[in-house]
Amino acid sequence: MPARAFVPGHVTGFFSAHPHDDPARAGSRGAGLALSDGVRVTVTPADRTTVRVNGERTTMAAVTNALARLGVDARVECETALPVSAGFGVSGACALGAALAADARAPSHPDLRPRTENELVAVAHAAEVEAGTGLGDVVAQARGGVPLRLEPGAPPHGRLDGLPGCPEVEYVTFGGLDTAEIITGDTTRLTRAGEAALARLLDDPTLDTFMAASRAFAREADLLTDRVEATVEDVRSAGGEAAMAMLGRTVFALGDGLSEAGYDEARSCRVTGGATRL
Amino acid sequence: MPARAFVPGHVTGFFSAHPHDDPARAGSRGAGLALSDGVRVTVTPADRTTVRVNGERTTMAAVTNALARLGVDARVECETALPVSAGFGVSGACALGAALAADARAPSHPDLRPRTENELVAVAHAAEVEAGTGLGDVVAQARGGVPLRLEPGAPPHGRLDGLPGCPEVEYVTFGGLDTAEIITGDTTRLTRAGEAALARLLDDPTLDTFMAASRAFAREADLLTDRVEATVEDVRSAGGEAAMAMLGRTVFALGDGLSEAGYDEARSCRVTGGATRL
Repeated sequence: MPARAFVPGHVTGFFSAHPHDDPARAGSRGAGLALSDGVRVTVTPADRTTVRVNGERTTMAAVTNALARLGVDARVECETALPVSAGFGVSGACALGAALAADARAPSHPDLRPRTENELVAVAHAAEVEAGTGLGDVVAQARGGVPLRLEPGAPPHGRLDGLPGCPEVEYVTFGGLDTAEIITGDTTRLTRAGEAALARLLDDPTLDTFMAASRAFAREADLLTDRVEATVEDVRSAGGEAAMAMLGRTVFALGDGLSEAGYDEARSCRVTGGATRL
Repeated sequence: MPARAFVPGHVTGFFSAHPHDDPARAGSRGAGLALSDGVRVTVTPADRTTVRVNGERTTMAAVTNALARLGVDARVECETALPVSAGFGVSGACALGAALAADARAPSHPDLRPRTENELVAVAHAAEVEAGTGLGDVVAQARGGVPLRLEPGAPPHGRLDGLPGCPEVEYVTFGGLDTAEIITGDTTRLTRAGEAALARLLDDPTLDTFMAASRAFAREADLLTDRVEATVEDVRSAGGEAAMAMLGRTVFALGDGLSEAGYDEARSCRVTGGATRL
């Protein structure tokens, strides 16, 4: 019997990097939005682990690491409308969805131990950190809403809060950025900017301040690309709120900010709740 | 402009009581189910606070306490299909929904400070504890899913986990129990039974063990009423899983366990995500 899970997409507006030898304690602080455009993951027992995204066979170390940590071999099928490597946390979503779904067999399996959600989130988070493809998407995707990562790491180490509300969101993507290159490089400047953005947001925990702090972060961390910067400006000029998704050449806007600025290709979704086994 | 929030219902299967002088640190440990049958709360600014449930003017100290803590006066309208005082956490849902909705005005109001979700949960939890109408519904309703209350109290004191999955649930109610009388009385026996149930569930974190531990708790804590006990037995005899909702003369069952046992009046809903400002 295949088991299924849904995991929201997640765009990060700003973050600071907090490496640690223990991948469950490594992670990021920062803030983002959990999106109703997410990943539907189907897990079927198999002799060895394979991963498909929208039908295409691929390698995704976060997923294979997660299943290896659970002692499971399975065929993992991920379906998503989100672009991969463009700042939507797709690899984290696939890893978390695979862990949540794979655990569904545990109660009836002699060699598997059923786990709580915190344990499964910790497995997926550590798997994603080991893979070098993300530092904070998994815990944010497990929570849902507008997650604030107050302390880095998986449960019980990390600590989360959130902003109230589930606004509509639009996004447009111009391509990917290499997450692994950025988060394993010198993150001093980025982390200083991320810590300042989080302090600013905690002082005034509103969506408008989240968007403003995200824009300031992208500038100070020197991550803006020309096209992203111009698109954010277009939305602002049309009276909207927009920022860059970390880490991708992606712009997200509140409400219909991108459509209003003439970006007819923008996709629309909304902030949604956390990951669920279906 | 009125502001709105939705808060799931919450049935507790078992709990232990942990009083504390600080209402934000007081609370319960235990486990339950967050239900898609919940409370929709509408908050409109007013000269003094009033509360209506399904159109009927009523007093609900958890709600008035929560708004007083936020420094807000408002007309609070709660709509719900759930019975009040029957073990569904309606007062906690009204308090949390009122806090989430009332905060929506804060960004544009000179005297109000916008708050994070953890802060609003803490306000509603403390208000509910002060009112004596609940010890753990608010934090569970804020989280959603199948909440495990590992440590008592509101954020940042309490600690939560969950079981994966969002099963369908049926319930039937035969009337209320006096929560305040039970949780302010001698809870020694109840708390011993609740701690044992939680240890058992954490050792085997599955829905079936949750239901079995809940049944054992109701027996050991001596909270079963005859009609509840007979109904749980009927569902079990028909091959289903059922337990008593704490604290009410209410039986909840997984899947269609009550219908299968001939309880045509049972209402059907499902486990759902946490509270949201709409």
